[in-house]
Amino acid sequence: MRGAVLYGPRDVRFEQRDEPKIMKPTDAVIRIAATCVCGSDLWPYRGLQPVPAPAPFGHEYCGVVEEVGSAVRLVKPGQFVVGSFFASDNTCPNCKAGYQTSCQNRELVGGAQAGRLRVPLADGTLVATPGMPPEDLVPSLLAASDVLGTGWFAADAANVSPGKTVVVVGDGAVGLLGVLSARQMGAERIIAMSRHERRQTLAREFGASDIVTERGDEGVKRIKEMTGGIGADSVLECVGTQEAMMQAIRSARPGGYVSYVGVPHGVKLDGAEVFFAHVRLHGGPAPVRRYLPHLIDLIWNRKINPGKVFDLTLPLDQVAEGYRAMDERRAIKTLLRPQEAA
Amino acid sequence: MRGAVLYGPRDVRFEQRDEPKIMKPTDAVIRIAATCVCGSDLWPYRGLQPVPAPAPFGHEYCGVVEEVGSAVRLVKPGQFVVGSFFASDNTCPNCKAGYQTSCQNRELVGGAQAGRLRVPLADGTLVATPGMPPEDLVPSLLAASDVLGTGWFAADAANVSPGKTVVVVGDGAVGLLGVLSARQMGAERIIAMSRHERRQTLAREFGASDIVTERGDEGVKRIKEMTGGIGADSVLECVGTQEAMMQAIRSARPGGYVSYVGVPHGVKLDGAEVFFAHVRLHGGPAPVRRYLPHLIDLIWNRKINPGKVFDLTLPLDQVAEGYRAMDERRAIKTLLRPQEAA
Repeated sequence: MRGAVLYGPRDVRFEQRDEPKIMKPTDAVIRIAATCVCGSDLWPYRGLQPVPAPAPFGHEYCGVVEEVGSAVRLVKPGQFVVGSFFASDNTCPNCKAGYQTSCQNRELVGGAQAGRLRVPLADGTLVATPGMPPEDLVPSLLAASDVLGTGWFAADAANVSPGKTVVVVGDGAVGLLGVLSARQMGAERIIAMSRHERRQTLAREFGASDIVTERGDEGVKRIKEMTGGIGADSVLECVGTQEAMMQAIRSARPGGYVSYVGVPHGVKLDGAEVFFAHVRLHGGPAPVRRYLPHLIDLIWNRKINPGKVFDLTLPLDQVAEGYRAMDERRAIKTLLRPQEAA
Repeated sequence: MRGAVLYGPRDVRFEQRDEPKIMKPTDAVIRIAATCVCGSDLWPYRGLQPVPAPAPFGHEYCGVVEEVGSAVRLVKPGQFVVGSFFASDNTCPNCKAGYQTSCQNRELVGGAQAGRLRVPLADGTLVATPGMPPEDLVPSLLAASDVLGTGWFAADAANVSPGKTVVVVGDGAVGLLGVLSARQMGAERIIAMSRHERRQTLAREFGASDIVTERGDEGVKRIKEMTGGIGADSVLECVGTQEAMMQAIRSARPGGYVSYVGVPHGVKLDGAEVFFAHVRLHGGPAPVRRYLPHLIDLIWNRKINPGKVFDLTLPLDQVAEGYRAMDERRAIKTLLRPQEAA
């Protein structure tokens, strides 16, 4: 089997890897129908996060179960399934509280940019679709695996609800799907912060009512002007940088909610500023598993079309170009289709 | 009129000050029935916060209205009232959202350690008791002015509700009244972190079910052991230091709530640690005004006795000793009674 391996900054290779196998009785092996490149993959790709040794890459996936371990009860070979980047048992207290990404037995899923993938804790991790999906639903189901689930968590953690004014900081795929999620949750006004025309268009298509192109302090000033000097009810920080985080905190009203779902890189919060901002903060690695049944349902019934974030589709063997296109912001998000025979 | 003036580190003087007067039509002047020394007063008292010029001190107060400005409608001379450290109009959007300490027209109230006090925005700031209180209720009504309202906000911001496991970090007056508040809100288990016997006793009296004497990482370890390895549902950080904040964050379960109500001094939060902790954070200057009617009602009907935090009562002219006793932790909280004739 061939798959993507990151060797170092801007060095992704598509090469021979060991065929995944059932290693524990709770594992499943799935044949990947579609995978993609994540914004978080770009941190190590850009050399902003160390890559100590060549590493199989990719953690977004959907596909067909080929084999399950002897202890797997719920997931069956032949089912089409979607999973998340953290495998979870879905039975521990943290899972039961809806924080499957803090599962006491969690395991990172890695190496999904390949033809096949081993998924640990299959029963707790994978959710089957009602049947074999039509081809045109595959991109949306893949989006549910991470980027939609993460945008959904951003909106949920920021308490988005009917009538609220919502600001989304970050116009990457997660931010755009944060817009879609806020729309689904009934927000009255959704302000997308973006200065890229194609992303603005998609933001509007997903439900943004306003676009703000200013950033940093200017962006905050603009949000304050638009909200009677008070700030927004809910702000979704979908980037993970210091600037985005401070912009988000300063854009929220006292008592408002700020969520953050992008892994923070070098972010430091000043206790006194957060204190006097009076905001509520919540975020972390999105517990996508919590939302998967609902998201699959929305997709299956064609209520939402999150697959639109994929504006570049490539055969998996062109994975290196997929990274390049996202790195250079030529693509919002690259979908990759394995071509090897099942 | 004489009142307390802080000149610099450990230099509180009781000296002649100008008689407060109505300066704006929305002001009231009240005769102080009781005032006290706040934990936050100790920061400048200890030289940990600069005192650029001699400053009248004190911001906790209750007493009888003597005079009101021409625009005051709700507050009447002769009423016994309680107010908070931030004057608020109680009509702006932030006030209406329950964040009166972020009122768009807020003004710090200062100089309450005196015989009389000017209170700005009287109608929005002061809440009258149902009648002239019996003497034994005065300490509790004074507590409502800040320290009880702050402990109550800590519990509310940490989502304390029936059945929850709550940890209180900090055994000062705010922490102790955080315990009382959590008990009132129906918490099942309330763990007070304290290593001082007198404070432990009061914590138990206010409703703590458990006492933990360990601090820092050891304290976190103990809380994890007591909560099946998961952490607490709600953690109230009632100190304002880096150690207390990190102890609070690390003691909460994923998806749990951490509140902070002590003005942070030098606190820096690492974005990545907060991210992976999966906690919810909320705090800031307690919007005591939001809670005053309810707290006054509980006190008036003798459902709670928060006045017990005052374990030292002095005539106001001994204010310097009041500070010293708290600084040296000989007293939890000092109540001061003005003795000048009305």
